[in-house]
Amino acid sequence: KASAVDEDGTVVCELSKNRRVTVRSFKGTVFVDIREFYEKNDVWLPGKKGISLTVDQWKALKKGIAEIDRLVTEAT
Amino acid sequence: KASAVDEDGTVVCELSKNRRVTVRSFKGTVFVDIREFYEKNDVWLPGKKGISLTVDQWKALKKGIAEIDRLVTEAT
Repeated sequence: KASAVDEDGTVVCELSKNRRVTVRSFKGTVFVDIREFYEKNDVWLPGKKGISLTVDQWKALKKGIAEIDRLVTEAT
Repeated sequence: KASAVDEDGTVVCELSKNRRVTVRSFKGTVFVDIREFYEKNDVWLPGKKGISLTVDQWKALKKGIAEIDRLVTEAT
């Protein structure tokens, strides 16, 4: 599925079974967090592997998509 | 600028001064790596903070863009 709601009510986008993109607000700043999760006592928790992008960095990532896709195609 | 070439000849997309997206092939598998870099002796090196996405995970991320953007707008 494309998205799910976790125990905190956060809507998330699943990249794979244990990788998610979540959008969260921390001290007034919004982050797009791309992160690995792990299961503990039937609850999925955020792991250390990942990166929290600011909205500006998220926008820069979107701007780079065509270039990234070109490189992926070249490398494949 | 949108992209730059590092010392290894890898073309990268810059998200900010010290965050980059690089596309690389490792043991025959292509990864889209979203990562923090740090400067040491005038060379930029990949740091520990970041995540390497497989091409399938990268595709899932792209599929999730509209949903992520919706959540960013809601949270802002």
